[in-house]
Amino acid sequence: MLNEKDKVKKLVGEASVEYIKDGMNIGLGSGSTVYWMVKKLGKLVEVGLDIKGIPSSNQTAEWAEQFGVSLTDFSHVKQLDLTIDGADEVDQDFQLIKGGGGALFREKVIAAAAKELIIIVDKSKMVTQLGKYPLPIEVLPFGWQMTANEISRLGCVPQVRKKAGGPVVTDNGNYILDCPFKLISNPRKLDEELKRIVGVVETGLFIGMADKIIVGDGDGIRTMNV
Amino acid sequence: MLNEKDKVKKLVGEASVEYIKDGMNIGLGSGSTVYWMVKKLGKLVEVGLDIKGIPSSNQTAEWAEQFGVSLTDFSHVKQLDLTIDGADEVDQDFQLIKGGGGALFREKVIAAAAKELIIIVDKSKMVTQLGKYPLPIEVLPFGWQMTANEISRLGCVPQVRKKAGGPVVTDNGNYILDCPFKLISNPRKLDEELKRIVGVVETGLFIGMADKIIVGDGDGIRTMNV
Repeated sequence: MLNEKDKVKKLVGEASVEYIKDGMNIGLGSGSTVYWMVKKLGKLVEVGLDIKGIPSSNQTAEWAEQFGVSLTDFSHVKQLDLTIDGADEVDQDFQLIKGGGGALFREKVIAAAAKELIIIVDKSKMVTQLGKYPLPIEVLPFGWQMTANEISRLGCVPQVRKKAGGPVVTDNGNYILDCPFKLISNPRKLDEELKRIVGVVETGLFIGMADKIIVGDGDGIRTMNV
Repeated sequence: MLNEKDKVKKLVGEASVEYIKDGMNIGLGSGSTVYWMVKKLGKLVEVGLDIKGIPSSNQTAEWAEQFGVSLTDFSHVKQLDLTIDGADEVDQDFQLIKGGGGALFREKVIAAAAKELIIIVDKSKMVTQLGKYPLPIEVLPFGWQMTANEISRLGCVPQVRKKAGGPVVTDNGNYILDCPFKLISNPRKLDEELKRIVGVVETGLFIGMADKIIVGDGDGIRTMNV
């Protein structure tokens, strides 16, 4: 039996596939909400839908394989028609924090490569201001301590994400710094400042990228367009 | 016997060690000019100089080991006293293009971490305007084709650097795009625009970083301070 939160994730994940049309190349996000989207997509493929996906994580690639969703990559595809992904926070301007699952870089690539980005979330992810969720930042391992020090000057104490005692290593071979800014008054400016720091690969701030948000709660779903 | 160019490289490389003082932590650049600096540094260590180095490439780490120069890393050192490195182009404002050897990211880390950056070059590297040398840009492998496409909009046709048929992989596991901009009218602006592109790890533009340039030719060396 699914708990309430998982029911909502399933609801929005399944609802999002209605935007997937025959012949599309689809960016497949990461995380527990995306799981339901990929599973539902597999059912449509079973009954004849012809699409190809580019996964944003090894985990999503495994799900796609499990549910029979064909995959491709950027050596074969120049642009994606649509990307569907989750988020950790969404504000009223459709600005996002992503990367809780550690796949933020590849998620940003498939978001940037897509004509349309649909974000699927449960209602708890909607916020008035970004920053309560610690901002994940992917950094190169070499000199990460220097990078963390530079980031700290912007107003947080970065923590390197750990697992079993050692740093979590992303699918790209990098580390994740979790940066609790608490309140981010100007996400676009912060993103630009962070990107200037040597060693920052990509931040979890997704600014001006989302086109549609599908939000779910116990009562159903609501779709908001930019 | 050394050819004329190597003689000059040896000259400036050896000249640069006079700025290294006992007790310093030193950033060790990469490339054929740095080779002579590390070799000379090894001789000073033999006679009692006590320093530690952080190398910017596996190649430089090997040279340091060969010549008896002790190494450390950023888990032990928060700041470097001095970094000495080469460059592919140096303009009159001490702006640099680096990365011909593929180590630009780690070179930028040790440059950013240092109180002082000394650049050692032969005269052929001095230019009035940057850009004749194709700008190296380190990019993540995932979606590099998208990244190259975005870079091309800024006015060049990026080529992925290859070796034996496959892409060159940096010490950080990434690719290098060589970007022939031909003339870079505003290096700082270009650097900022490039850094905003998803997938760009770091560019070979070093702006406002160099403090001192030691230039050599057949007649000797000249030292210029910012």
